[in-house]
Formats: sequence, C-alpha cells, structure tokens
Amino acid sequence: MNDEQKRRVACHELGHALVAVFSPKADPLRKVSIIPHGNAALGYTLQLPADDQFLLSRTELLTRIRGMLGGRAAEEVECGEVSTGAQNDLEHATALARQMVCVFGMSDKVGLANCAQRPPDLLAGLEYPLQRDCSEQTARDVDEEVKKILDQAYA
Amino acid sequence: MNDEQKRRVACHELGHALVAVFSPKADPLRKVSIIPHGNAALGYTLQLPADDQFLLSRTELLTRIRGMLGGRAAEEVECGEVSTGAQNDLEHATALARQMVCVFGMSDKVGLANCAQRPPDLLAGLEYPLQRDCSEQTARDVDEEVKKILDQAYA
Amino acid sequence: MNDEQKRRVACHELGHALVAVFSPKADPLRKVSIIPHGNAALGYTLQLPADDQFLLSRTELLTRIRGMLGGRAAEEVECGEVSTGAQNDLEHATALARQMVCVFGMSDKVGLANCAQRPPDLLAGLEYPLQRDCSEQTARDVDEEVKKILDQAYA
Amino acid sequence: MNDEQKRRVACHELGHALVAVFSPKADPLRKVSIIPHGNAALGYTLQLPADDQFLLSRTELLTRIRGMLGGRAAEEVECGEVSTGAQNDLEHATALARQMVCVFGMSDKVGLANCAQRPPDLLAGLEYPLQRDCSEQTARDVDEEVKKILDQAYA
Amino acid sequence: MNDEQKRRVACHELGHALVAVFSPKADPLRKVSIIPHGNAALGYTLQLPADDQFLLSRTELLTRIRGMLGGRAAEEVECGEVSTGAQNDLEHATALARQMVCVFGMSDKVGLANCAQRPPDLLAGLEYPLQRDCSEQTARDVDEEVKKILDQAYA
Amino acid sequence: MNDEQKRRVACHELGHALVAVFSPKADPLRKVSIIPHGNAALGYTLQLPADDQFLLSRTELLTRIRGMLGGRAAEEVECGEVSTGAQNDLEHATALARQMVCVFGMSDKVGLANCAQRPPDLLAGLEYPLQRDCSEQTARDVDEEVKKILDQAYA
Repeated sequence: MNDEQKRRVACHELGHALVAVFSPKADPLRKVSIIPHGNAALGYTLQLPADDQFLLSRTELLTRIRGMLGGRAAEEVECGEVSTGAQNDLEHATALARQMVCVFGMSDKVGLANCAQRPPDLLAGLEYPLQRDCSEQTARDVDEEVKKILDQAYA
Repeated sequence: MNDEQKRRVACHELGHALVAVFSPKADPLRKVSIIPHGNAALGYTLQLPADDQFLLSRTELLTRIRGMLGGRAAEEVECGEVSTGAQNDLEHATALARQMVCVFGMSDKVGLANCAQRPPDLLAGLEYPLQRDCSEQTARDVDEEVKKILDQAYA
Repeated sequence: MNDEQKRRVACHELGHALVAVFSPKADPLRKVSIIPHGNAALGYTLQLPADDQFLLSRTELLTRIRGMLGGRAAEEVECGEVSTGAQNDLEHATALARQMVCVFGMSDKVGLANCAQRPPDLLAGLEYPLQRDCSEQTARDVDEEVKKILDQAYA
Repeated sequence: MNDEQKRRVACHELGHALVAVFSPKADPLRKVSIIPHGNAALGYTLQLPADDQFLLSRTELLTRIRGMLGGRAAEEVECGEVSTGAQNDLEHATALARQMVCVFGMSDKVGLANCAQRPPDLLAGLEYPLQRDCSEQTARDVDEEVKKILDQAYA
Repeated sequence: MNDEQKRRVACHELGHALVAVFSPKADPLRKVSIIPHGNAALGYTLQLPADDQFLLSRTELLTRIRGMLGGRAAEEVECGEVSTGAQNDLEHATALARQMVCVFGMSDKVGLANCAQRPPDLLAGLEYPLQRDCSEQTARDVDEEVKKILDQAYA
Repeated sequence: MNDEQKRRVACHELGHALVAVFSPKADPLRKVSIIPHGNAALGYTLQLPADDQFLLSRTELLTRIRGMLGGRAAEEVECGEVSTGAQNDLEHATALARQMVCVFGMSDKVGLANCAQRPPDLLAGLEYPLQRDCSEQTARDVDEEVKKILDQAYA
C-alpha cells in the first residue's frame, strides 16, 4: 500500500473516531487501527457499548449511522474526493436506515406498517424467495425516507 | 440491562397493559412481566380471552391492534422517543391490519375481493412461490388502507 | 363457543340459506347446520344442484356469488358489524368473479382474451412458476371488474 | 345432463359449424357431435384441412379465431347469455391472437419485434423460468392488440 | 404441401436472396432451396461470409437484419399478405437488433450502458434466473429502439 | 481475419493505449497486442498499476472508465463507425459506473444509499435469487446516472 493510500485510510478511520468521541450517545471508542488486517480490512475503528444493548432508541440509531458515515466525510474533506473505501460503511448505514423505516416504524411518511421483505408466514420453508409485499408506491416512499435519513446524518 | 433500558421496558409493557384494561372488548389481562426471558423477550404482557375465540368482529380486531401499539405509544410519551423494542408489535399489528383489508373484506376502498398472496389453487405444491395476483393499483390501495388502520389505532 | 359467537354463526348461515331460497336459479337448499364440525367449520349451508352441472350460465354464476356473500350480509345487518367468519366465502367468491373476468370472457371491459395465470404451454413441467402474461394495465382492469361484480352481488 | 344444458351444447357446436361452413378459407367441416365424451368434452366440432398445412396466412389465422368464437356467439344469440362452456375456445383464440402479435409480426402497433416469453438462448435448461423480455409499455400494447383482434373476430 | 404453399415458400426464399444479392455489404449468396428438409425448414437461403468474421460493423449488422426481413417483404408484395413463415426470421432479427441496443451501444437514446439480462457476476451458478437489472423506463427505451431498427430495416 | 478487421482491431487497441498514456491518473501501459489469442481476444491492451491498489478514488474510477471506452472512440473516428468489438469494454464500463452509483455513493441524485442487488442477509443460501430491494423510481435514477457517467467519460 503506497503512502497516498495509507493517508487515506488514516483519514477514514479518524473520521469514524471523531464522530464517536463527539457524539453524546455514541458507544465509547476503544481502539483505532490503520494497519491492514488480511484482505478484508485496511483499518478499523472499534466502539463497544458500556452495557449490553437490548434496545436502541431513535437517537442511538441515528448516532450509529452518523458514525458509519464519518469515514467518508473525513475522506471528502481531507483528501478532496471520496473513494471506494466507504463501501461497507454505506451498506451498513443503508441497512440500518432501511430498518428504521421498514421495521421500527420511525418514518412518519411510511408510517407504522412493517414493510420489510420477509418469507410468507405459513410456508416459511427455505425454498421460497422472499416476497416484496408492499406496492411500488410504498417502495418509493421507503427509498425517499432512507435517502433523507442518510443525507441528514451526513450533513 | 442498564436502568434506562429497564425503565423503557417497564413503560412499554405498561402501555400494553393500560390499553388492555381500558378497552371494553379487550381480552382480560392476566400477567405483566418486565423480567427478561432468554434472548427473545425483554418483558411481556399476557392477555387471555375469557372463552375460546372462533370468530373476531371488526371491533375486536381493532382492539387487538390498539393493544399491540400501546407499548410504542407509552415509550413515546414516557421516554420521549421510540425505540427498536416495538418491532414485533408492529409486525403483528401490520399483519392483522393487512388481513382485515385483504382477506376479511373490511376496507371499503379495497372492497370484498380477496387479494392476499397465496399459492395457485391447482398446483399447490411446495415448490411454487406465492403469486401476487393483484395489480399494482390494488397493492397501493391495500398499503394505504393498512396505513390508515394503524394510524387511527395509534391516534 | 359463547352465546354471542353462536348467535353470529346462526345469522351467518341463515344469510346463506335465505339467498338460496329466494334466488330463482340457486341450487336447492338441503341442510343448514350451526353445530361446529371439528376445527374447520363453525356451521355450514348445503346446497346441491338438482342435476349434474356441466355448464354454468352467467346468471347461475352470479347467483352462486350472491349466495356466498349472504352470510356476511346477514352478519352486518343482524350483528351490526362483520367478522372474520366470512373469510372463506370471500375467497371463493373472489375466485369465481375472477374466473368470470379472466377465463369465461364475461367482462366487457377486459374482453374475450384469456388473461389467467397459467404455466407456459410448451414447458408445463411442475418446476415452473405460473406466469402472469398480461400487462399491469390489464391486471388493473381485472381487479376493477372483479370488485364491481362483488359489489353488485353484495348490494 | 338436463335438457337445458343439452340445448346449450347443441347451440354452441352449431355455432362453430356455421362459421366453418360459411367462411371461404375455413378448413372443411367433417363431423359435429353433441354427445358427451368422458369428462373433457360435452360436444365437439371437427374440422380437418384439405392438405397438410405448413404455413398459415393472416387470413387463415383470423378465420380460425372466428371459428373458435362461433360457439360462444351462438350461445349468446340463442340462449340469451353466455356460459362457462366457451372457456377452452377463448383460451385457444387468445393464444392464437397473441402469437399473431408477438411472434408473427402481424400487428402494426407492436411491429415486427418478437416479444414472446421464452427461455434465454444461452441457458435454455429446464430449471429456468421464462423471461418476459419486453417492457410494461410493450406488454400493454400487446394486450390491446390481442383484445382488438378478438373483438373484431367476434363482431 | 399444396401449390399455394409452395409458391409462398419460393417467394419467401427469393426475398432473402434478392436482399443478399443487392446489398453491398451482404455475405455472398451460396444456395437457395425451396425443397422441404424434414419438419424444420420449408426452404432455405444460404449465405456464407468470404472470410471468418470476428467483428461486425454497424452497417454489416443492419444488412443482416435487412436480409432476414427480405422473406417477409417478398410474401407481402407477391402473395398479398404475410404468413406464419417469417416467425424464425423475426425472432433472429429481433435478437440482433436487441443486441445492437443493449450490448453493442449502438443506440443514441439508450446510450453506452450495457443493459442486457445476465446472471449476476458473483453467483453465476446455473440455479439462478437471469436478472433484469435495468429500470422499466430503460426497458421501454430499448423496446422503442429495437422497433425503430426493425421498421427502418423493413422500409 | 481479413485486413479490414485487422485494421479495426489495431485502431481499437490504440484507442485504449492513447487514453492510458495521456491520463495523469491512469495505470501505466505495459503492452499492446493486436495478435489474436484464441477465441476470446482479438487483441489486448495491458495496464498494470504501479502499486497494489486497495482503494480507488472517484477520479481513478473515471479514468478507468475512460480507458475502457477509448477503443470504441478510436473505431468511431478512424473506421467511421463502431462495431461489435466494444462489447466487453461496454460491459465492464457499465458495471464500474453502476458500482459508483449503487455501492460507492458517488452520485448526488441517488445519494448515499446502497441500492445494489444482493441476496437477503439472513437467508443467504445459494437457492435464493438476488432481490432488487429498491423501487422502480430509484432504478430509473440509477440508470440515468450510469448513462450520464458513461456519456461524460466518452465525450
């Protein structure tokens, strides 16, 4: 890994760490590493909750999303442009925002209805593909709400 | 589980219990627990019908939905914001509201037509995925009616 | 089963029976029962055709649909609101109305074209899911026509 | 089978036969039967081409469709309303009209493009569901053209 | 095969041959046959390229499509109407036009993006159905462009 | 392979090479060949990065796309029209542009949300087809953004 890439990784992890330190509800920061570990991770930022977490409030969920996006924000500010390094962060942040909208009922527009994809109740055999049981209109609302949550968290 | 989480669980179960006590048609309340039971339940509210229930009227169905949403409402009022704890309640309330619209013919807009997903009649083998046999327009009507039932029950 | 539920079952079956008796083209009424039989049926209304029926005219089909909806109508009038007891009736009435529109060519709007879901002709192996071979626009027309048939039968 | 049903079957088969006799391009009529044969057929009208047919012109295809719809037309005129007896005729007429539009390029609106459902060329294994490879807009055009062909043939 | 059908086959193959002879970029014509070969072919027109063809320019592709449609054009002009005989030609011409739009980037409207159906890259096992990875809007653009290519080639 | 085709292959590979040489961020050019290698490749242009690449910035991704499209551009300029030779380049360039929009969050219009097709998290067995978990509206936005990236890279 050349120097430019090492600098980018350092910026990225620092971004995660800064959000963790300055967010009142964030899980405490334990360790930051920019030494590559095998093929999977070029670096990592480790946060561990003080207690076991059985429930997460809306604020705690948004704090987690903000933390995930901190690495990309740091790259944009420090390196002038974003890179492929935020792929995993974006995937996890999207999944969490989608859960907020689809299974936790935390979007006014979509409402309380569970609209996640799931196997049908009666025939939950492994052979069945998941069914999208909502309409295209609801799917569009979900996409808009997910985009809004991520945009606000990144702002 | 720290104190804040315990308080939230207590609020949540109390919300279920209050709806059960004050709804004329609700099944009688038997037990409320806020002691975690294994991984699945942080607490529970047990209601058992006085007799075996073979039929449920429209009012009884709405009362059940209101009871399911009582936990989330109590969290919102007492803890200031909602949490991930209502996930199961929302899933069950959505499923019940969807049945009212799709298989019990209880929505004027969607009408009497059964529009649930089901395996085709002639070839009900296990290998077949369920078919959505209604149009996108009907799916949108169903989503709107389900949202309306839940919003009214939560109000 | 408590008294309220028994009364509802009696109303429901009586509704079926009344339509059967007063419709000129209905199959003759043989037996009405409101004694529960196992888990499946809380009561039943038995109609048997005078002869074997190989063909059903449009009028005979509509009479059958009206008979199926008679139970729900009686519940609504006598008990003040509908219940979950009409689920099977609605499923069968929907299927029959859908056949009128999709395979018997009995809707002017949809026309003569067969638009039912069916396995493809050449490869009718059991492994194939049924194909919806019509457009979303046609699916919407079908839904509207099915709703109209049921609404008119219920009126 | 009661007399009313026998009369209806006779009308239906006579309708097929009349179209066969009076259409210049129709295959010659060989036999008409209104005696039920097993469970499948209540009657039949047999037409056999004078020679082997390797190619069918547009006119010959339309003549076949008209013949298929003759039974239903006769029921409507003679018995006052249509019945379930035309189900097979409608299915075959729809399939033929659909082929005219989708694989024989005989609709100006849809044009010459093949838009039939078919398994992908490279992976034509039996495990694959057929793919609809056209857009919803094209599917709607196909449905409209099929409806027009059938309406004109029935007029 | 009666005389009318023989004449139609002759017209059809002659149509292919004429396009082959008069198109500057067409592969040289080797043989024309109107003697049926088994069940599959009533006649054929054989064109073989002068050299092995590893690349085909846009002009060469359009010439091939024009040749495929020559048989149908000749039937329309000489026999007064088209027949089922052009089915294979239309299927191949459609497939080629679709490739021009979807994988060779030869349509300005659709642009350079590959929008063909294909199995996902990572999980290319045989059990997976092909995925349509473009939107309905793009599918509509593809259909319009394919129709335009065929219409212009037939004009 | 005749001379015209050889000239076309030479143009195509030269196009790739020219972009590689004149782009500041492009991977260094190692070898250009226009000698066919088996059935798969008529020629190739080999670029190897100076260091192992663990991360790619937005600029580096766009440079790669521009390099992939260089072959087609050269054919268009030098040979007067494009050919089938750019098929692989277009497929790879599309895939890269699609990743930029769907998994790297590099499109303002689509935003940060991951919208790639992927197997559901919980049931990642091999039997499941990938699910498109975004709405048609988002799919359309993705297509437009992918087209824009390719058009700008080709300009």
